[in-house]
Amino acid sequence: MPATGHEKAAQVLLPKAVEQLRRLLGSEAVLCDGAVFAEYRDPFEGPDARDHQPAVVVQPASVDEVQAVVRLAAEEGFHLWTSSMGRNYGYGGSAPVVNGAVVLNFRRMNRILEIDPAQGHVRIEPGVSFRQLYDRLRADDVPLMMSVPDLGWGSIIGNALDHGYGYGVLGDHAGALCGLEVVLSDGELLRTGQGAIPGSPLSSSHRRGFGPSLDELFKQSNLGIVTKAGLWLMPRPEVFAIGTIQCVQEADIIPLIDMLRRLLQDGVLQGIPMIVGTPAESETSDAGQAPFTLANLKTVLRPGRWNVRLGLYGHADMVAARRAILAQAVAAIPGAELELRTYPGTAGPEEVEPRDYISAGIPNQVLLDRLKGTFGESFGHMDFSPVLPCSGEAALRLDRAVREVSARHGLIGPVGMLLNQRSMVAACMLMFDTADPARVATARTAMQELYQQAQSWGCAPYRAHVALADQALGAFSFNDHALARTYGRLKHAFDPAGILSPGNHGIWPESARS
Amino acid sequence: MPATGHEKAAQVLLPKAVEQLRRLLGSEAVLCDGAVFAEYRDPFEGPDARDHQPAVVVQPASVDEVQAVVRLAAEEGFHLWTSSMGRNYGYGGSAPVVNGAVVLNFRRMNRILEIDPAQGHVRIEPGVSFRQLYDRLRADDVPLMMSVPDLGWGSIIGNALDHGYGYGVLGDHAGALCGLEVVLSDGELLRTGQGAIPGSPLSSSHRRGFGPSLDELFKQSNLGIVTKAGLWLMPRPEVFAIGTIQCVQEADIIPLIDMLRRLLQDGVLQGIPMIVGTPAESETSDAGQAPFTLANLKTVLRPGRWNVRLGLYGHADMVAARRAILAQAVAAIPGAELELRTYPGTAGPEEVEPRDYISAGIPNQVLLDRLKGTFGESFGHMDFSPVLPCSGEAALRLDRAVREVSARHGLIGPVGMLLNQRSMVAACMLMFDTADPARVATARTAMQELYQQAQSWGCAPYRAHVALADQALGAFSFNDHALARTYGRLKHAFDPAGILSPGNHGIWPESARS
Repeated sequence: MPATGHEKAAQVLLPKAVEQLRRLLGSEAVLCDGAVFAEYRDPFEGPDARDHQPAVVVQPASVDEVQAVVRLAAEEGFHLWTSSMGRNYGYGGSAPVVNGAVVLNFRRMNRILEIDPAQGHVRIEPGVSFRQLYDRLRADDVPLMMSVPDLGWGSIIGNALDHGYGYGVLGDHAGALCGLEVVLSDGELLRTGQGAIPGSPLSSSHRRGFGPSLDELFKQSNLGIVTKAGLWLMPRPEVFAIGTIQCVQEADIIPLIDMLRRLLQDGVLQGIPMIVGTPAESETSDAGQAPFTLANLKTVLRPGRWNVRLGLYGHADMVAARRAILAQAVAAIPGAELELRTYPGTAGPEEVEPRDYISAGIPNQVLLDRLKGTFGESFGHMDFSPVLPCSGEAALRLDRAVREVSARHGLIGPVGMLLNQRSMVAACMLMFDTADPARVATARTAMQELYQQAQSWGCAPYRAHVALADQALGAFSFNDHALARTYGRLKHAFDPAGILSPGNHGIWPESARS
Repeated sequence: MPATGHEKAAQVLLPKAVEQLRRLLGSEAVLCDGAVFAEYRDPFEGPDARDHQPAVVVQPASVDEVQAVVRLAAEEGFHLWTSSMGRNYGYGGSAPVVNGAVVLNFRRMNRILEIDPAQGHVRIEPGVSFRQLYDRLRADDVPLMMSVPDLGWGSIIGNALDHGYGYGVLGDHAGALCGLEVVLSDGELLRTGQGAIPGSPLSSSHRRGFGPSLDELFKQSNLGIVTKAGLWLMPRPEVFAIGTIQCVQEADIIPLIDMLRRLLQDGVLQGIPMIVGTPAESETSDAGQAPFTLANLKTVLRPGRWNVRLGLYGHADMVAARRAILAQAVAAIPGAELELRTYPGTAGPEEVEPRDYISAGIPNQVLLDRLKGTFGESFGHMDFSPVLPCSGEAALRLDRAVREVSARHGLIGPVGMLLNQRSMVAACMLMFDTADPARVATARTAMQELYQQAQSWGCAPYRAHVALADQALGAFSFNDHALARTYGRLKHAFDPAGILSPGNHGIWPESARS
């Protein structure tokens, strides 16, 4: 099976290569040690970590420089690990699968290249963060609204290429990209879709060209390095209404998800509603070590056994119609409570309540601040995020599995679910104290057990920590792992020497096969 | 440049291979001549055609049989040309790029494998037509609504794999597929996305797995043969309202498209509105030969200089809100007239006016019947369908180019545009009498001129007749045709011997490179 037997021995980066990188990019763009360098390790790896260590971090400032780095890597035989900002902390940050990689980081390539309010898109580089684009749109009073994830410091392109979600109308961020510029492993430049036509006015507006669309090949993969992308944004709505549905009974989750799924498919609800499950009052067995207790966890979660966060967007009359239909549907669930706050479409951080920032498309760090406030500065987490059927039964099964596995390992973690029209993506954190190496190891063991549980349901994570990528892909085993073998075939076609991010999402070059 | 120099010499299919095909599939599944065989030639090729001729047509009844045919092709060295139903007449029907191919046709693989009203999807084989699925949904009173293209006889999967459009809420048919089963060139079976997890409940519900999503690789391509797919359908709405917006002035197209684009992006309008341009009254120069005259063309088009066909779907209150916002926007264009007919969501062919069938998701042949009634049984067409900016300026430029080029060649053709949220796809037919070989050739020449015009705008067709595929892909020339070279790299990785549909969408195996 492809998920085992890879040659993961650390590569050794020669001092000569470091010198050449400095000559290509300038000394300040090559980080080898110190506090800034440390940001590119797994932020939650614990003090004893030996795996997934970068050798050097390079920060090119242009596509030319990216091409030069890739060509040097091919000549000198070192490999690269691409990480746009490195902020996906729950999955390992910038940490490479294989020790000793040169981390290619995009924080210096952060230009907003185009903003088109009429066509509803922007074109950006991978170092542009949610916060940065938001500030620019506000400063220029551009009538477009963003979809943002839980934390606003990350790269928009990095999040989208990782199949990340936000919560707005275009909350499937991978699906909101349109038209990529990609550096291939031989340093050649590829533009996908309409962007391959010289002088195209549609690079960021129409997804397909002629022949197969290649954009998806460069998401969750290591077949190329994305250096530019178009991103679709929705027009700034006349009004938006943000709020919650609260349910008190465990069994309410069945009619609750049935109702939400139907209204999402009908187009009454928009974006990606998020359900959080709070442990029932009866759960008093606090296996965790303070401050990692269920009691503390409950203080950061919203009230009720199940709490849905959602938003309605658009013309005032449309939002009123959406709201009336939703209210009627919520009223059919005894005890369920709907609460919505309406804002004008222009409302910014001054007018919007902080608890409504995410659904209002305002990037922020509120969640991280609260978690650190409750659990301390050495708080860490690892994320369990299987794709599940969009049903209450699947939600209950997830909830039980996470509670049972965490309790058995003395861990705690909130259970969240992001609702698509036809599936859910779980967002569950296992939380621990990174100062204690034993707790870090325990979290990893618990996560592996959760992966096994998911597999028994016919399900698998949609993202995974770098240490668990092979296991995650291992679940996709139909026909003797035909999918992983096809990935290997693609890797060989695009990057035969295995220069680019070997092991990313379980995709290995043939040279690494045992 | 990759668009020239391919080895297109007809292959010679040995009698032995035909015998082996008969043994594998049964004699009745191997067509070599006669009227049924003739259906798989280009229906509009004209009487003197020599190119794009199939040698044999095979009709497997199962995935096993498809695998067996692919393995035989690899052993015997003949190539296959996949065509689900062969109904995309404007682009060549089932005709292969290279003479002498074995056409692999799916009419006998037409099972509806799953219908899930709650999750909003079906799972089907490529021989299922729009008509067939509609009849089944009606017979079983399944509360789902289809999106259908202009003619209802074609394959749903074939249309979607060709990036085809319908007009419903999920009118981007390629985007409505979810989870493919694919036979690769070595006969191996691949399942994409969630379907690669044994026992997955989400094959047809969630698009991505872990690692890059491969579905797009098998659309408009020749990298594998799709044998099953999930398809998303919208819930049957409470009501739908179908109708038109009519504008009389040529210049109205500018505010008209601005208004429609904004309402599409806002989520007020749904689906794919279609605009048809009727030649102005002043255009009296009737270069065409009867019955192919502008006067006759006008009788099949809707009234007004520009006529938009659209539909609104959903809860009655939502449709009312959509309608009021639309009516107010139309009122801002002097002289524009909005006409809408409202139906209950359950309305079928008996209740809905035939002119509203398409937007009501009812498959039909009305358009073809009318065209044959007006232009005769030997009526043929070739389709010009560039992707364009979603703007009135682009519409006017298209309209002028089609009128000018057709008039110069003594041809006629309607100008249509399908509106996406951020782009338009033109749908223009050049019409001719297929009984006259000179007219067929003229249409092809005119089409090539139109391709060149589109390229001067930075635009290219989204689909093309098999005879023009290389030219269509040739426009995507950035960085010395990096896109086409990447297609070649993929072709080599997936089908090194070039067995599957060589030349499809300009994708050639390396063995065919000069």
